[in-house]
Amino acid sequence: MIHAYAAKTAGGKLEPFEYEPDPLKDEEVEINVEYCGICHSDLSMLNNEWGISQYPLVPGHEVVGTVAAIGDRVKTVKVGQRVGLGWYSHSCMHCEWCMSGNHNLCLKAESTIVARHGGFADKVRAHEQWAVPLPQDIDPAKVGPLFCGGITVFNPIVQFDIKPTDRVGVIGIGGLGHIALQFLRAWGCNVTAFSTNPDKEAEARKLGAKDFVNSRDPQALEKLASSFDMIISTVNADLDWGTYINALRPKGRLHFVGVVPSAIQAHAFSLIAGQKTLSGSPLGSPQTIARMLDFAVRHNIEPIIETFPFSQVNEAIAHLEAGKARYRLVLKN
Amino acid sequence: MIHAYAAKTAGGKLEPFEYEPDPLKDEEVEINVEYCGICHSDLSMLNNEWGISQYPLVPGHEVVGTVAAIGDRVKTVKVGQRVGLGWYSHSCMHCEWCMSGNHNLCLKAESTIVARHGGFADKVRAHEQWAVPLPQDIDPAKVGPLFCGGITVFNPIVQFDIKPTDRVGVIGIGGLGHIALQFLRAWGCNVTAFSTNPDKEAEARKLGAKDFVNSRDPQALEKLASSFDMIISTVNADLDWGTYINALRPKGRLHFVGVVPSAIQAHAFSLIAGQKTLSGSPLGSPQTIARMLDFAVRHNIEPIIETFPFSQVNEAIAHLEAGKARYRLVLKN
Repeated sequence: MIHAYAAKTAGGKLEPFEYEPDPLKDEEVEINVEYCGICHSDLSMLNNEWGISQYPLVPGHEVVGTVAAIGDRVKTVKVGQRVGLGWYSHSCMHCEWCMSGNHNLCLKAESTIVARHGGFADKVRAHEQWAVPLPQDIDPAKVGPLFCGGITVFNPIVQFDIKPTDRVGVIGIGGLGHIALQFLRAWGCNVTAFSTNPDKEAEARKLGAKDFVNSRDPQALEKLASSFDMIISTVNADLDWGTYINALRPKGRLHFVGVVPSAIQAHAFSLIAGQKTLSGSPLGSPQTIARMLDFAVRHNIEPIIETFPFSQVNEAIAHLEAGKARYRLVLKN
Repeated sequence: MIHAYAAKTAGGKLEPFEYEPDPLKDEEVEINVEYCGICHSDLSMLNNEWGISQYPLVPGHEVVGTVAAIGDRVKTVKVGQRVGLGWYSHSCMHCEWCMSGNHNLCLKAESTIVARHGGFADKVRAHEQWAVPLPQDIDPAKVGPLFCGGITVFNPIVQFDIKPTDRVGVIGIGGLGHIALQFLRAWGCNVTAFSTNPDKEAEARKLGAKDFVNSRDPQALEKLASSFDMIISTVNADLDWGTYINALRPKGRLHFVGVVPSAIQAHAFSLIAGQKTLSGSPLGSPQTIARMLDFAVRHNIEPIIETFPFSQVNEAIAHLEAGKARYRLVLKN
């Protein structure tokens, strides 16, 4: 029997919920949940914003814990080993995307919380390859958010071959952005933070930003024309993307990891004139997660978190919904 | 004295026009125009669609001719040598973009027909580096359109590292698209032509398309979900770009070389889910033009043209405006 917290309806409060899992599959592992981060996408799923939620819904996809049991054919992790688990818990392992190391692009990849029960629980299941072993010397209490928020901003650095000589902007200094600043500084980049909240300037600079710009100030943005090799947008708000495209250097990229509400609009000429790019990406592969963890340890990168006991899960969610999280929330069993 | 054809006002007919050029600059060449293609952007400039036209306006930026005179410091071409000249005729040669071989991205690059007089004339001027020597064994009567239409579709193949194993779509089988099909087939790709005109199917297949799809048929497009590594849009019409993004494979790219009238719209989720990209690019550098010409000769790639004498320039333009060009028009002195 797995003891979890679930919402019974869209927007409903989380309540204790028990379920009997199926027999453990050959390539699956069961994880004893020690910690689980709360991600903004847990809120989106709880509120059925994307129309794919199934209830009762057990959120939670930033899990850290120890392996409790393994299926008959599991080879990569052992019982007792500490692992982390993020947004994806399964992929087919046979298609061209899995076979080329792009498991996060597998068309059959399964989210930990879509049509499955997630990590707001004492136990959670995943394919062995998505239960990524934690390196030595990493704090298990803090690393959970790297498995979703962290890999979401680390992966584009790798995918698009960001260079230490590049100037990179981060829009939104929250759960994702405050990790992105740390990765990019450690990567050697010239980092600019874009935020609507001037109170975040001092901390953004401490985390790695050389410059801090008000993301709704068109004049400040105009001064930055042709400045950035890449701008990563972590926000879920509509901004004037044309001014950000204008802030890109030739060959620059405006990259979305946050689902903004309205369609992104770009005039063809603004892309053509400077060979500019708009793109997006989802999370990262298990191997990229492993490399991120190694990089994080070597550079002392960790999320700034606030911890709540699982029994206060609804209070924690209210804190996140109020925009008060600084910067990432973690539940503790 | 240079004898040209110019429009005196936006939308006005072309009339004979003479002008006395400045003394030839040290790094400039003067070209005796033998042939000059007519590009859709000549129409846009004649009609001041982009708000940057200056009158009297001498169009023409697909020039082929022989070098008539060279400035004191010219080293790369000789008097009498046959050269081609495209959209750009100058770049600063000193900025990071010029210094890294990306002269077409120079922020000070000058168009042959913006605040300058173009190739609808007996003579035209350019910086020596933008007067690219023609290889042996190329037909000077046909090669003009490669200097604008051709390089516009060849350059993205190089810039984005298209592989012979890739499946590539071309939207719009006109002046640019009919050249793109030839380049992509010779590059080894699996090529699909998208066109609104079913009459073009047979010729599109002859030019290199393995498949032919009606670009306004949503059902045909739906069947092609997750099919393409790259789709190059050459049209200047608004299409439902979401269905084309849907037709991209993970990591796929929808690339614009034609200026479409309305803003391109894309939902963030459609880019994020499959790590997809929207981009644009302008023309190509002199070195990329030279490589394109070499590639075209080796693979017998040439534009399909209709030739008019310069004296019938207005008839030729009316033919192009009527959408009747098959596929590219060339004026002959």
